[in-house]
Amino acid sequence: MITMKYTVLITIAALVYTFILGGRVGMRRLKLGVDAPAISGQTEFDVAFRIHMNTIEQLVLFIPMLWIAVTVIGDIWAAAIGAVWIVGRMIYAAGYTADVNKRRPGMIITLLSTAVLTVMSLWGVVQAFLS
Amino acid sequence: MITMKYTVLITIAALVYTFILGGRVGMRRLKLGVDAPAISGQTEFDVAFRIHMNTIEQLVLFIPMLWIAVTVIGDIWAAAIGAVWIVGRMIYAAGYTADVNKRRPGMIITLLSTAVLTVMSLWGVVQAFLS
Amino acid sequence: MITMKYTVLITIAALVYTFILGGRVGMRRLKLGVDAPAISGQTEFDVAFRIHMNTIEQLVLFIPMLWIAVTVIGDIWAAAIGAVWIVGRMIYAAGYTADVNKRRPGMIITLLSTAVLTVMSLWGVVQAFLS
Repeated sequence: MITMKYTVLITIAALVYTFILGGRVGMRRLKLGVDAPAISGQTEFDVAFRIHMNTIEQLVLFIPMLWIAVTVIGDIWAAAIGAVWIVGRMIYAAGYTADVNKRRPGMIITLLSTAVLTVMSLWGVVQAFLS
Repeated sequence: MITMKYTVLITIAALVYTFILGGRVGMRRLKLGVDAPAISGQTEFDVAFRIHMNTIEQLVLFIPMLWIAVTVIGDIWAAAIGAVWIVGRMIYAAGYTADVNKRRPGMIITLLSTAVLTVMSLWGVVQAFLS
Repeated sequence: MITMKYTVLITIAALVYTFILGGRVGMRRLKLGVDAPAISGQTEFDVAFRIHMNTIEQLVLFIPMLWIAVTVIGDIWAAAIGAVWIVGRMIYAAGYTADVNKRRPGMIITLLSTAVLTVMSLWGVVQAFLS
């Protein structure tokens, strides 16, 4: 029985989106002839590889923080802030693919989402210690 | 007190197996003289590095999805599908080590396991929204 | 409402510390002119990159194991062993930055922390199966 249904849905969406970014790396390998186990070789491949890797790096911070924050701010708010994270990642991937120097706006949106979840989580911990 | 004991056991096994793949990378460093911080240099090292890294990429999708799915399909089924993931990773590592082109069957088994967990998780979310 | 407040606090600290290590990689990019999407180029950058990446590799094992172990050994003990993990990562980062060959002590402290959490988790699983 699923509780926190909105936050579960956002979690699944974040995981599926990260999976799709990984699939793009595999497709770029085939298209550009960057044979495994190489992890660089052509800029178009390298960009797809970094988009995926950077999203993994952010995902492993985001998912635990989301699930701490949900116990503090509830299902709807956690899911809303989590949705911003996914949008940030989409803007990051689109920007980075268009131009390496356009990767920052999406990155900043991602980081703001995780930062808000972190502040809310710390607020919950402070409350727990004070109560 | 541990509940969901089968799924906990599968989680521990997946984490320990991923740790072992990381240990192999360290041993290949010593054996082949690929000194840190290099992350490539010789094919035998590169293959071990990619097996570990790819397993990390899959693990961060698998573990959260497993623990969403377990609330929908219960301990035994989640653990059974999770066991397939671990077997897929073992076939992936063995295949990739033997021949770069033999990495796909294990990869597909891994992805099928995660895909089934994803579909079950989404089914649980749909039920939660309808109820 | 946060329960397990000490372990939540340690989790947040581990995530924030990993985030800081990622920020260092971005700053090294700017300082040393290692433009994205490159992931190597100068030793000072490569070392910061590996410190971050290795910490991600350890984090994805540590966080799930910490939250299995907390159900077996309780909040205070899990948090205490988790604090050792963070200290180990700090020693690892400082050692690796000073000298590539000084990365091992921090690595060993990290691994010992995760190993203790693993043994405690397995002990909990055995108890669950026997009870």
